[in-house]
Amino acid sequence: MTDKISVSVIGASGYAGAELVRILLSHPSVTLAALSSVSYTGQSIAELYPAYRDICEQILVSEKEAVEKGDVVFASLPHGLSQELALECDKQGKLFIDLGADFRLDDGETYTQWYGKEYIYPQLHEKSVYGLSEIYREDVKKARIIGNPGCYPTSVALGLYPAIKNGLVKADDFIVDSKSGVTGAGKTLTQKTHFPECNEAFSPYNIGKHRHTPEIEQTLSRFASHPVKVTFVPHLLPVNRGIISTVYAEKNSGYTLEDIYAIYRKTYENEHFIRVLPLGEVANLRNVRMSNYCDISVHEDPHTSKLIIVSAIDNMVKGAAGQAVQNMNIALGIDEKTGIDFVPPAI
Amino acid sequence: MTDKISVSVIGASGYAGAELVRILLSHPSVTLAALSSVSYTGQSIAELYPAYRDICEQILVSEKEAVEKGDVVFASLPHGLSQELALECDKQGKLFIDLGADFRLDDGETYTQWYGKEYIYPQLHEKSVYGLSEIYREDVKKARIIGNPGCYPTSVALGLYPAIKNGLVKADDFIVDSKSGVTGAGKTLTQKTHFPECNEAFSPYNIGKHRHTPEIEQTLSRFASHPVKVTFVPHLLPVNRGIISTVYAEKNSGYTLEDIYAIYRKTYENEHFIRVLPLGEVANLRNVRMSNYCDISVHEDPHTSKLIIVSAIDNMVKGAAGQAVQNMNIALGIDEKTGIDFVPPAI
Amino acid sequence: MTDKISVSVIGASGYAGAELVRILLSHPSVTLAALSSVSYTGQSIAELYPAYRDICEQILVSEKEAVEKGDVVFASLPHGLSQELALECDKQGKLFIDLGADFRLDDGETYTQWYGKEYIYPQLHEKSVYGLSEIYREDVKKARIIGNPGCYPTSVALGLYPAIKNGLVKADDFIVDSKSGVTGAGKTLTQKTHFPECNEAFSPYNIGKHRHTPEIEQTLSRFASHPVKVTFVPHLLPVNRGIISTVYAEKNSGYTLEDIYAIYRKTYENEHFIRVLPLGEVANLRNVRMSNYCDISVHEDPHTSKLIIVSAIDNMVKGAAGQAVQNMNIALGIDEKTGIDFVPPAI
Amino acid sequence: MTDKISVSVIGASGYAGAELVRILLSHPSVTLAALSSVSYTGQSIAELYPAYRDICEQILVSEKEAVEKGDVVFASLPHGLSQELALECDKQGKLFIDLGADFRLDDGETYTQWYGKEYIYPQLHEKSVYGLSEIYREDVKKARIIGNPGCYPTSVALGLYPAIKNGLVKADDFIVDSKSGVTGAGKTLTQKTHFPECNEAFSPYNIGKHRHTPEIEQTLSRFASHPVKVTFVPHLLPVNRGIISTVYAEKNSGYTLEDIYAIYRKTYENEHFIRVLPLGEVANLRNVRMSNYCDISVHEDPHTSKLIIVSAIDNMVKGAAGQAVQNMNIALGIDEKTGIDFVPPAI
Repeated sequence: MTDKISVSVIGASGYAGAELVRILLSHPSVTLAALSSVSYTGQSIAELYPAYRDICEQILVSEKEAVEKGDVVFASLPHGLSQELALECDKQGKLFIDLGADFRLDDGETYTQWYGKEYIYPQLHEKSVYGLSEIYREDVKKARIIGNPGCYPTSVALGLYPAIKNGLVKADDFIVDSKSGVTGAGKTLTQKTHFPECNEAFSPYNIGKHRHTPEIEQTLSRFASHPVKVTFVPHLLPVNRGIISTVYAEKNSGYTLEDIYAIYRKTYENEHFIRVLPLGEVANLRNVRMSNYCDISVHEDPHTSKLIIVSAIDNMVKGAAGQAVQNMNIALGIDEKTGIDFVPPAI
Repeated sequence: MTDKISVSVIGASGYAGAELVRILLSHPSVTLAALSSVSYTGQSIAELYPAYRDICEQILVSEKEAVEKGDVVFASLPHGLSQELALECDKQGKLFIDLGADFRLDDGETYTQWYGKEYIYPQLHEKSVYGLSEIYREDVKKARIIGNPGCYPTSVALGLYPAIKNGLVKADDFIVDSKSGVTGAGKTLTQKTHFPECNEAFSPYNIGKHRHTPEIEQTLSRFASHPVKVTFVPHLLPVNRGIISTVYAEKNSGYTLEDIYAIYRKTYENEHFIRVLPLGEVANLRNVRMSNYCDISVHEDPHTSKLIIVSAIDNMVKGAAGQAVQNMNIALGIDEKTGIDFVPPAI
Repeated sequence: MTDKISVSVIGASGYAGAELVRILLSHPSVTLAALSSVSYTGQSIAELYPAYRDICEQILVSEKEAVEKGDVVFASLPHGLSQELALECDKQGKLFIDLGADFRLDDGETYTQWYGKEYIYPQLHEKSVYGLSEIYREDVKKARIIGNPGCYPTSVALGLYPAIKNGLVKADDFIVDSKSGVTGAGKTLTQKTHFPECNEAFSPYNIGKHRHTPEIEQTLSRFASHPVKVTFVPHLLPVNRGIISTVYAEKNSGYTLEDIYAIYRKTYENEHFIRVLPLGEVANLRNVRMSNYCDISVHEDPHTSKLIIVSAIDNMVKGAAGQAVQNMNIALGIDEKTGIDFVPPAI
Repeated sequence: MTDKISVSVIGASGYAGAELVRILLSHPSVTLAALSSVSYTGQSIAELYPAYRDICEQILVSEKEAVEKGDVVFASLPHGLSQELALECDKQGKLFIDLGADFRLDDGETYTQWYGKEYIYPQLHEKSVYGLSEIYREDVKKARIIGNPGCYPTSVALGLYPAIKNGLVKADDFIVDSKSGVTGAGKTLTQKTHFPECNEAFSPYNIGKHRHTPEIEQTLSRFASHPVKVTFVPHLLPVNRGIISTVYAEKNSGYTLEDIYAIYRKTYENEHFIRVLPLGEVANLRNVRMSNYCDISVHEDPHTSKLIIVSAIDNMVKGAAGQAVQNMNIALGIDEKTGIDFVPPAI
């Protein structure tokens, strides 16, 4: 026990926070030092989530206490609330991993435009690293402030990285049609996520104005080394977990689907958590649920020649808590798979 | 009772056939003369579908008997099996409405290419009419052989008609990302539609090779008066009923979203079953379930200027049995709404 | 149009109210005079329930206006709020049908004990009739105030009536294990009915203290002409609509299952909306969804000799709005099936 | 690696077999020696279950090979097929754990009556142990043939053990109303488990004739030391995983609910995988999914004094593969929780 790392989770009462708790409870190298929640301080996490009864009965404490007790501090908060925490952790030399939106965007103006808040400590944003683990692993190794990617952006960026990086597609604009399970909408009650109105229902939402749009564009632009635009349309899917992003792209001339497939395989050949499916198979969110895997399949429409990339993740794991722990592992220099190498259930 | 029209349903044991039975049972102008099924001849429809117990206990008979007894004959059969029936109905002067694929495509070669069968009686195909009710109403009025549109094509064609017809978009190619409830896959058992493997799952299928692709392209090309291509990707949605098609198009210059909206409203202002939603609202399949409505919403991505059209139908009603009855009403010269003017349930 | 009856729905914004609106919109003998809602006055019902767009865009008005405009007044309100309305309708000679709990219990003390409110106008309760349509039809014919039964009580009472009335079972106490779809919990948002916490979940609730318990006991006691007790355990089922009640009873000696079945068939032989399934078949809520049917199957455990009665209804139709309209039809002297003779969808 | 135990899974292509594979892949003390399947020999398990791609690509081999390669042999087969395997394992000194029905019933005649097959090697049945881990742990420690309990019997037996063992209830007969997720019906395709017919549906099945009935009665009779009967009614629940058993019992006089609760807590105080919930809370299958926990809550109907026990398990884990591994751990003398101490996901 002595050499286990103390970690705290701030915002443990939300869904991403609760999933972090679940994962960290089984992580062999850490101990849960403190959980905090503004709304539920003084209650046990197991009261909120009876699945954790007898397993974790920790009382939710203040943010201050959580920061003090953790050598690693995860925060899963509404946007705007992580900057002061990051400052404090930075001062105290703690590793800070933010599952919210405050450290995802490089550009403060873009942040202000989409989130309506300001970057208070620009120096923190200069230090912080965008934690798309497979792509920015080297940066994450040295990071002390990590902005954990959003769920949709993770699925899209991992799906498009080999294509853009290797110039396989025209990287001007992409059509991104994404579908997310309802946990992505969080714990807050809304009419739209009320069971009778969400079950046997399906529709897009926030068309052209979802806050993950600038994050997706920022990442794809980095891959391309020039500005990339996306038409991003998210849909609410009546399942608990999982995202499918169906991405439409124009191939550059000279590449067959087989070429593209070979490059995808090559790009990710050493990536444990990314599975490029054999040609002819299609990624399905059921095969990655409850795991940190990202399944990717590539397809070509035979008569329009459009390239179609399908990317599947569990929004709560690879799209949030799992990737956050993967980033912690990388930053701490321990085996990246530690504590997150779940086999996805077949059924 | 004397002046009710006798109708028969061939292929009544499948889902579309069973839905036809349900609708026709409450239709005030018709009487169900006969139901047929090759696989279940001799059994009662209520044995197959206990929802119909005491309401319709008709014994499934042979196709021959069904043709004889009906003045109107609906067929809901696997492709290739409707042509002989159409010939027979044509000889006997009966109205024939085919819910299968045999009378949807104008071009026999395209049919052969996608379905692997031949057009045996080309003269029937010349006579037959494509029953997209709102658009080809005048043709349907005179038709004696009606090819009822496929479910996906109905949602896509109604969604794009005003845009293409009025030159609002570049009608070269479209991205069509569609999602269908599982009844669309029919009654046949498959691993993919086995509850534990379909529930909490989601993925595209038949990418670039779904048989509705040529039908969609044929219809959009007619609207455009020149060849149009679509990249069509269907997805299997874990709900029973409903289709959402999310269509991505390039606007032609000079049109604002408000212009486009106004033209959509104008185009469909007299169409009872098409609801163009106010700007800002999004079509959701829950609002059209169990009804013959098609809900359409139009959107613009503010920074890529892509036009996004969302079209929602119940695949079993407007996408199959409901539109078939609508076509029958039109062809018989009775009020088009008769027997299909269901109010979709709010919950 | 002139001789259509004017009806109003008070509490139209709730799920039962909205379902009433749907049914009444297609009812050939009535016209919707007014809809009211305290919380949403001034909004259109179609804003709340976009399924009704273009079909019913009525603005929600005050209760007072709704009472004035209707010859028949339906109320679907939280308990305690219907008594003043009933008084007013009674004064003005209007038919009042209450879908809430205020006119279900004969005994004011029982009402106070379970609902924490008082019977303010005992004379109204003396006049009012318990609207279990099939059983109390003669009373309903003469009624001007009708207490529409609860959803669980409807399923249980119809399932047990033939057994108790004919002395087939020991009518001392019954075990009633019921399962209801989530619409039964209403439109109000709760953590328990939040999609991610309700989907892929199942549990009993309100064990031994559900407010439908005294209503069930009152009705069974009337059937038995002596006090009957039930152990009633409701469960929340992750589907939208439908109730299954599984009832366990001790047969009286001398009755075989075949005898019991024969008596059930005989009892309900003229009841359009009650289907006693053939021996060997099992009631399933899927066969009654969206309809006013109650499906009942009877079973015997071969080695304990317990009689098991399974009763299935759609909680929103036969368990609420459908039965309310059935009662209206009876009270108005029109064909009882008018406007509610829906064929349940096979799929 | 050298001192890991070799285990084989026979019947790995079924759902319970596949779940065993998933659990064993992460079990730190074992190595998967061989997987077998009669129907899919020669295929990879990852072809059948693409969730396992890249994680376990083992080719399904013959039963013979699987027996040879494993020191521990799990079998998950249709009834009647495990006896020869058990004989072979017994001869070769291997630990044999049967997830099927062949080693659950003590009495060969009962087996023949319910399963229509014979006990071929009675001596094996004398040796075999019923692996209800928490209750028969001492027997399991010494066992070489273990009959792993059925899913329903596990939930019912763990729920009733403290009550029967301590004489808290009249142990003559019990009403057991159970509800199981659809994985319990297995991988075989049926109309009933076809998504459109299973989704938004619910009903009991096999009333009074489910094969788990004699197993439940055998176990409860052992607890009581006299014959106990149950009226057992299973229901098919439209979720993937989980069982809720709601059990109705008569309290013996002198016990309050508080007494009973205290005895339940005491009985299971050292059992890691059994959680007796605080009075007032209700077991829900969502809190045990994907875990080996059994959650139990006890309740009393205040006016009938019936005791109601609610027991929740994941049918695939505690009800099948998880308990099988728990039994292996016990029989091998390693920490019982090894490899199965999953934290159930909160959402």
